[in-house]
Order: sequence, then C-alpha cells, then structure tokens
Amino acid sequence: MPVVNIQITRDGATAEQKAEVIAGVTDVLVRVLNKDPATTFVIIDEVDTDNWGHAGKSVTQLRALAK
Amino acid sequence: MPVVNIQITRDGATAEQKAEVIAGVTDVLVRVLNKDPATTFVIIDEVDTDNWGHAGKSVTQLRALAK
Amino acid sequence: MPVVNIQITRDGATAEQKAEVIAGVTDVLVRVLNKDPATTFVIIDEVDTDNWGHAGKSVTQLRALAK
Amino acid sequence: MPVVNIQITRDGATAEQKAEVIAGVTDVLVRVLNKDPATTFVIIDEVDTDNWGHAGKSVTQLRALAK
Amino acid sequence: MPVVNIQITRDGATAEQKAEVIAGVTDVLVRVLNKDPATTFVIIDEVDTDNWGHAGKSVTQLRALAK
Amino acid sequence: MPVVNIQITRDGATAEQKAEVIAGVTDVLVRVLNKDPATTFVIIDEVDTDNWGHAGKSVTQLRALAK
Repeated sequence: MPVVNIQITRDGATAEQKAEVIAGVTDVLVRVLNKDPATTFVIIDEVDTDNWGHAGKSVTQLRALAK
Repeated sequence: MPVVNIQITRDGATAEQKAEVIAGVTDVLVRVLNKDPATTFVIIDEVDTDNWGHAGKSVTQLRALAK
Repeated sequence: MPVVNIQITRDGATAEQKAEVIAGVTDVLVRVLNKDPATTFVIIDEVDTDNWGHAGKSVTQLRALAK
Repeated sequence: MPVVNIQITRDGATAEQKAEVIAGVTDVLVRVLNKDPATTFVIIDEVDTDNWGHAGKSVTQLRALAK
Repeated sequence: MPVVNIQITRDGATAEQKAEVIAGVTDVLVRVLNKDPATTFVIIDEVDTDNWGHAGKSVTQLRALAK
Repeated sequence: MPVVNIQITRDGATAEQKAEVIAGVTDVLVRVLNKDPATTFVIIDEVDTDNWGHAGKSVTQLRALAK
C-alpha cells in the first residue's frame, strides 16, 4: 500500500527513465518492506525550474548564475 | 479547515466532473466531521500516465499491455 | 487509481468517523469519475493545532483568542 | 533541511514573484528555525482554478458567481 | 534535487529498514536520472491503519474482516 | 487561497517558533502575491530523523556519523 510522490525538476526525463524509476522504487519497497506491488503507487511530479527554490533562489536563477 | 489533495491520472475529467468531486468531497467532510465549507479546500492534481506507476510499471505501459 | 490526502486538525475524529470519511470520499470518486475502489487510497493526516496556521496565526492561537 | 510545498491557484505569478516568494520563505526558516538555506527547498505548485475547490465549488465557479 | 515522499501504513518498519529504503530509493534516482545524492531528500510518513483507506474501508477494518 | 506544507525534521521547534514561521510565511504570500490571509493555510509537519533521508542516509545516521 505505499504511495510514493517523487518531485523532480522538469529536465526532460524520458518516459523510459520514468518507467525505470517507477520499477526501481517499487522494487525497493517490495524487497525491503515486503510491500505488494499491486497496491504500490509511484507518482512523479516534474516541476518547472522557476517553481523550485533552493538556497533562497529559484533553480532558474541558480542555473543562470552558474553560467 | 480541511485540505484535500486528490491525485488522479489525467484521463479527461471535465470541469463539471471536477466541480462535482469538489462538492461531493466537501459535503462528506461537512456531514461527517462537521467541517466548515468556507475553510475547506479540495485540490485536484491530474497526473500524466507516464508519471503514474502501479505494480512497478507506468500506467502508460500497463494500458499498452492491456490492449 | 486515485490517491486522496486529507489534512485536518487533530480534533478527536473517531475511528468510525474516519472510516465514514474514507467510505464517503471513495464513493464520490467511484460515482463521479467511475474510479475503481480497489485502487483508490484515502489517507487522513491529523495535524496538531500548533502546527496548522490560518490567517497568519496557529489554530492554537486563534482558539485562545476566540475564548 | 526543510521542504516547503506551496500550492496557489494559477493566476499569472511571474518568475520574479515566485523567486521573491522562494527567497522570503527561505529567509523565514533561516531566521526563525536557524535552517540552512543550502538544504532548504521551496516548491511552488500552480493549480488551475477548475481544479481548486473552496466552500464546495471550484474557484472557476466562484469567480463566475462573483461577476 | 529530488524530494521523495513515501507514505506507508504504520506496521513497525525498523530504523534499519527505513534507512535501507532511503538508500535504495536515492540510488535509483542517482542511477536512472543522474541526480545528486547531496540534494536528494527521502521522507517516510507512517500512517495509522485507521487513517488509511483502501477500497472504501480503513485498513483497520479490512484487516479485521480478513481475520 | 495558498496552502503551504512545510516539512522539517523533528528538532524541538517550540509552539512560539512555529507560530512565527506561520506568521512569516503568510506575510510573504500576502506581500508578494497579494494573497488573502483569511484563506491562507500553513501546515507544519515535523518528521522523525529516522524517517528523513538525505544523501542516501537517514538524518539519524548522518548525525551519528558527524559525532
């Protein structure tokens, strides 16, 4: 019965990569906590870099500064 | 003062259906827990099927397999 | 496949009331969006009134002011 | 190590405003709880008004009624 | 920069198991999406079975029925 | 109408500090985005250090290593 919400910045993760994350995270919960995959949800939320703040700045700002 | 976050797969729920879910869920909280509708929020998040995993696969994968 | 997270202040909701909220909210999603109850999760988070802010004050503060 | 998730209705907040919210919220956590900005995330989720319910109606409905 | 929120029912997961889940999930994100562990958070929320609903019933109810 | 969820490690934040965070964060949203405090919620979730992972380890582990 786990519900896993994964928030990442929107950086072009492909459908295949997201499927691999879903499979990998589900496997961890099955292996370590003996959870049933049939009632395990993994939800990926891709967030615009304007909308993700780290160290007081948006990621858009941080990446501009890093150039 | 309830805050309700509802995550569903993006499957074309209409504005009318979403309004009906909002009304229905608010009513349950008012009826059962005597909550005040004026301070009750219901937020619906529609998630792409590539981004929702169930049983170790994305819903996109599951639906392709089910064809 | 809906996941519903309900946040309420910790005000002594009984197990029966929480079960009724779970049943009621699930029914709304089944009735309005034709969701499958078998893959519908409803999760209730009860929050201490010190930890819930409304209008710039904690609920603990608001309730003390309201006395 | 704080993670702050901010949900607001999608009402055209600019990149500058979102950056200012990120900076302001991070500053509160640094100032009040002595948190390290380097491990503080602030994530802003902008929600369509069809998808945000208040007092049993969607914000779209409420705004239409208010006209 | 991923933030992973994992909700599971409160079923006695040990500190060691939770650490193993944290390590395993972080590894998936590093391996598949090349994320930096230093800015990857994994947060585990253990939920009472009265507060987790599945198929319209609380897990407490479901487990009582299953006896 | 903002809803702000703040997750922090459980490190003994006092009721006064939490009230100050609530006031400060609400003020940022009022000042920057012209939000109405009367429909602004700030919810603080304090997480055990066994349940918060950073860089692939739980905070409990990290703090033990740092001694």
